[in-house]
Amino acid sequence: MRLNNLGIVRTNIERPDPADVARLSQFGVATIHEAMGRVGLMRPYIRPVYKGAKLCGTAVTVLLQPGDNWMFHVAAEQVQEGDVLVAGCTTESEDGFFGDLLATSVMSRGCRGLVIDGGVRDVDDLEEMGFPVFSRAIGAKGTVKATLGSVNVPVVVANALVNPGDVVVADVDGVVVVPREVVGAVADAAQKREDNEGAKRQRFRDGELGLDIYGMREPLAAAGLEYVED
Amino acid sequence: MRLNNLGIVRTNIERPDPADVARLSQFGVATIHEAMGRVGLMRPYIRPVYKGAKLCGTAVTVLLQPGDNWMFHVAAEQVQEGDVLVAGCTTESEDGFFGDLLATSVMSRGCRGLVIDGGVRDVDDLEEMGFPVFSRAIGAKGTVKATLGSVNVPVVVANALVNPGDVVVADVDGVVVVPREVVGAVADAAQKREDNEGAKRQRFRDGELGLDIYGMREPLAAAGLEYVED
Amino acid sequence: MRLNNLGIVRTNIERPDPADVARLSQFGVATIHEAMGRVGLMRPYIRPVYKGAKLCGTAVTVLLQPGDNWMFHVAAEQVQEGDVLVAGCTTESEDGFFGDLLATSVMSRGCRGLVIDGGVRDVDDLEEMGFPVFSRAIGAKGTVKATLGSVNVPVVVANALVNPGDVVVADVDGVVVVPREVVGAVADAAQKREDNEGAKRQRFRDGELGLDIYGMREPLAAAGLEYVED
Amino acid sequence: MRLNNLGIVRTNIERPDPADVARLSQFGVATIHEAMGRVGLMRPYIRPVYKGAKLCGTAVTVLLQPGDNWMFHVAAEQVQEGDVLVAGCTTESEDGFFGDLLATSVMSRGCRGLVIDGGVRDVDDLEEMGFPVFSRAIGAKGTVKATLGSVNVPVVVANALVNPGDVVVADVDGVVVVPREVVGAVADAAQKREDNEGAKRQRFRDGELGLDIYGMREPLAAAGLEYVED
Amino acid sequence: MRLNNLGIVRTNIERPDPADVARLSQFGVATIHEAMGRVGLMRPYIRPVYKGAKLCGTAVTVLLQPGDNWMFHVAAEQVQEGDVLVAGCTTESEDGFFGDLLATSVMSRGCRGLVIDGGVRDVDDLEEMGFPVFSRAIGAKGTVKATLGSVNVPVVVANALVNPGDVVVADVDGVVVVPREVVGAVADAAQKREDNEGAKRQRFRDGELGLDIYGMREPLAAAGLEYVED
Amino acid sequence: MRLNNLGIVRTNIERPDPADVARLSQFGVATIHEAMGRVGLMRPYIRPVYKGAKLCGTAVTVLLQPGDNWMFHVAAEQVQEGDVLVAGCTTESEDGFFGDLLATSVMSRGCRGLVIDGGVRDVDDLEEMGFPVFSRAIGAKGTVKATLGSVNVPVVVANALVNPGDVVVADVDGVVVVPREVVGAVADAAQKREDNEGAKRQRFRDGELGLDIYGMREPLAAAGLEYVED
Repeated sequence: MRLNNLGIVRTNIERPDPADVARLSQFGVATIHEAMGRVGLMRPYIRPVYKGAKLCGTAVTVLLQPGDNWMFHVAAEQVQEGDVLVAGCTTESEDGFFGDLLATSVMSRGCRGLVIDGGVRDVDDLEEMGFPVFSRAIGAKGTVKATLGSVNVPVVVANALVNPGDVVVADVDGVVVVPREVVGAVADAAQKREDNEGAKRQRFRDGELGLDIYGMREPLAAAGLEYVED
Repeated sequence: MRLNNLGIVRTNIERPDPADVARLSQFGVATIHEAMGRVGLMRPYIRPVYKGAKLCGTAVTVLLQPGDNWMFHVAAEQVQEGDVLVAGCTTESEDGFFGDLLATSVMSRGCRGLVIDGGVRDVDDLEEMGFPVFSRAIGAKGTVKATLGSVNVPVVVANALVNPGDVVVADVDGVVVVPREVVGAVADAAQKREDNEGAKRQRFRDGELGLDIYGMREPLAAAGLEYVED
Repeated sequence: MRLNNLGIVRTNIERPDPADVARLSQFGVATIHEAMGRVGLMRPYIRPVYKGAKLCGTAVTVLLQPGDNWMFHVAAEQVQEGDVLVAGCTTESEDGFFGDLLATSVMSRGCRGLVIDGGVRDVDDLEEMGFPVFSRAIGAKGTVKATLGSVNVPVVVANALVNPGDVVVADVDGVVVVPREVVGAVADAAQKREDNEGAKRQRFRDGELGLDIYGMREPLAAAGLEYVED
Repeated sequence: MRLNNLGIVRTNIERPDPADVARLSQFGVATIHEAMGRVGLMRPYIRPVYKGAKLCGTAVTVLLQPGDNWMFHVAAEQVQEGDVLVAGCTTESEDGFFGDLLATSVMSRGCRGLVIDGGVRDVDDLEEMGFPVFSRAIGAKGTVKATLGSVNVPVVVANALVNPGDVVVADVDGVVVVPREVVGAVADAAQKREDNEGAKRQRFRDGELGLDIYGMREPLAAAGLEYVED
Repeated sequence: MRLNNLGIVRTNIERPDPADVARLSQFGVATIHEAMGRVGLMRPYIRPVYKGAKLCGTAVTVLLQPGDNWMFHVAAEQVQEGDVLVAGCTTESEDGFFGDLLATSVMSRGCRGLVIDGGVRDVDDLEEMGFPVFSRAIGAKGTVKATLGSVNVPVVVANALVNPGDVVVADVDGVVVVPREVVGAVADAAQKREDNEGAKRQRFRDGELGLDIYGMREPLAAAGLEYVED
Repeated sequence: MRLNNLGIVRTNIERPDPADVARLSQFGVATIHEAMGRVGLMRPYIRPVYKGAKLCGTAVTVLLQPGDNWMFHVAAEQVQEGDVLVAGCTTESEDGFFGDLLATSVMSRGCRGLVIDGGVRDVDDLEEMGFPVFSRAIGAKGTVKATLGSVNVPVVVANALVNPGDVVVADVDGVVVVPREVVGAVADAAQKREDNEGAKRQRFRDGELGLDIYGMREPLAAAGLEYVED
């Protein structure tokens, strides 16, 4: 009986319908997370490594060991057009697990970016190549290739569970994970939300207050809010 | 189609064999995590709130909203003899979600402790009651009861995935999660490891070196280690 | 016109009624903060420097400059029986601003303890002397005496505003600031809350659930909570 | 007797002379803080959410509850031309309390930006709209509208006290709070300092040393500085 | 030409006079650091892993790789009576590099404790064995034995440089490094300081103020300190 | 006998061959650190204060006291064409030790930038002047000139030892310290590494996998990696 998920590569993961992923890619992270009912976000310490970085793709997951990037080379072979790499680590580390050579490798196979609960390096090259990366740190420290992790097992990244085949969307506001089964439904809900916000945006622009748009005056009074004229 | 896991209470979770849990409770966290192949640990920022706190039990999971402890009252009803509460939060928070009244409540139902990725309070009372708690913070800030989370859904706590029915073991060294399916096998492996360590401990005590006990001299030389006499 | 509060010692601050302070000292920090309506807490990074430290007293405030403890000597002269020192710093610092000599000095004048958004040292001595200290750090780094701060001006300590003469209460759960004007009223409210909790504690001990004690089942259902039997 | 400041909106705060605010807006944060005698700064974890963000305006203060942005809608109604929103929270939170809709709303009323000891989202939109924000985090996590905070009460933001009507200035170097009563005097002092620095800048550019410009050689020698030629 | 210090074990380091180390061991960390002129401290995030832990000994230094404790076994052979292990890491890590077996091993050779800029585990055992450890974290995560570091090269630990043969003293207040060449002189200076403080302590106990003992009133007035009677 | 290194200015430090420094300046930090065998990096919390900042030069070291920038003025006189300032502090501080006037001063003497384990200010001016700075923080808080540190003594900066005359290279990936004696040899090794990477980059671009380029398939299999087709 297997006591853990280490030393495994799943080669045949289920992926969502690319059309659904394409629809989802039109929305921002904040909108998608609201559309899901305010869940699915990674902790906000994961940040884009360069301004303007954005990604949306299907997760090929990587479980790393501290100071060891061996599994990225294993993962590269599993990447297909439209995938993103999503990497957790068995321990906290800000080492530079990933740089321009690995980015070159996985871009050549259609990879759309990386989300990693660790460090990356060669950030100027990554920006020049247009390879979006979201990480907990930028760190030049090189890594070894000595200990097995896994590819395409469930991983926890910045406190979010990511299953291989889930869709991950990242922009300046953060990173959200959309389970494979609900990608289409979430895209629908995000569209609805965005339509709704568009209308409101105009009313706000015209100077109407949220107090009135959302009908908050009564519940605020009921909660006991008191206006005081000094 | 459900887009998330919020607003749910699972009432009929599968629990492991209590005899296996009892066997597992004899081992420390470090041993269990090694026995599993060095996985399953929460991040080390989760600490015991008083010296000597230890727990081992079956997880009733709680998903909290920030600053809101409503779901603990819901969870209390689901607790059975031998359970522990294991609580994550949709966002980082160090508020005091849990105190002596809730502890009194769940102890009366057989609860063996709490692991929470948040804050707790009434820590002197918790110690006096002998209710072990492992948390990210101690904080007096009270919480409201306004927004739904969930009970007995999978939660991520300090970067570890916990499914309801998993066994959680915590001591001064940290917190480890043992999936329900492997509790017995992990207890076996932990026993084997401990037997093995006992023999080694005596050799170390007698002054024998790890270099010799583990046969490290040759691989160190092969790796290029150089002894220099200044 | 004074552009700031630096270089000032107020010698004649108003203090609350000692009887009210005495009443307040019977309650824990969590209770007092709830009695005030969930306000008044310092951030939870302020921790007791030894187990069992507790304090309640009237604030003599100190505004420190980084790496400089000159103002503590100035403050010592302002301390009266029943006071506590409450020190903020114009910048973040974990240096050891305060040690056993200063503690000896202020104890001889009736000081009941120290709360400091900085570091302290000689912690073993402080514990032996029974001088309770709550700080952001323990640090041996000595300080200089070169730059003016102030004594008995309003200070911000761990994100809480403290005016000289306010009452500060600290225990294992945290630190709460009670404005001078409301000390008696807060003591009343805390008593009421404690009476109320005592009754509930027994009901919890008897196995009654918060769901029933607080009548939560209906609002939970109204909010959409769903019980699922797998 | 009111035990706290929650659930209050002050509708008639005193604001400083707009001409004084305009004069102050010409100076950087470092200069203003020096002009005040090196006080008034928020802790440096408050950062601009996009490059080039700057603001100067009169504070409309907001006291938030964790994970709850209800009070921003209440505050919007209190905003006048030339105001900035300045928001603290009763607890630490990196949730996204504020986004493009609220920014649209308050910009339509003349608001010049936001300083918040919490998170914000829709950062690309905020940049595009030219609405400057300084925050502790960027986070997509949405908030609820369930618990009362306050508007235009004194708040502590990143360890600085802000009273409604104070002027807040923020740029890449940080955030400084200028009490309402001294806005004009601080603008005068800042002007004097800047005039003085301009002259010095040229001398430094010409290669003159601070050692000579400031006459430091003698006090350094008196302090015991030793030049060693190896 | 060697480009770095990796893969080296120095076997013949110079150690200070044990009599000087014994004299130094009588003083606390704060006193020693003051005696040295306020230098030599590690950053205060290094903390004792159990209450009452103290150590003073000659440094055998260890340079670790992240998640790899191989070098501790190499270092064990270099330990002599009166030594302490002092370990840095090429990167930040909170893994459990050291536990009860290694402690048993090095205790059998006369080792007096460990200071490590990383994590340790089996903390209950360490306390029971009376083996003092000062670390940045407690973490159960096990390590591998795959990559060479070094033993007895200069290491940086918590921002302090430690050369093999230096004396390291640690107690509740922190950790101080005394270079081998000055151990005797620092012990002398510490004794002088302690004698001096003893006299002052009695004066403080008698209620005399630091303002008078240190003659501060005049320099404070010269600096512009103003006493204000409200 | 000197017990510490405070209050010293070394005026005649040895510098490396400028031609070697020039060669080294062509490589990125990640490459140089790999060429040295994966050592020499500062901790990754040191970050460029503006996008695009890069530096390479010979270290003039500065040891600062908390909240005190006196020694920068002393250091300015020691700066020669091609030097960089590298500043540590005896304690952690995020104050603004350095701004546009000091930058103007040292630029006029040929200084190529600053690395500081502390804060800096006037960041917009620094960017406009093209004076690259790498720091732990941006902070407006001004400093005093009251306590002696040192110039051109060994300093520890972000956990890296820097001797005066060492070469420091910094870019978006981090900061690396190259000891004076090995600057030429490291430049050679960096060139070799870059040549080698260039060839590999093309193979990666062509879609070849690291698994094959580096011959990893066999060692991975030997380590037990298992491919699973779900």
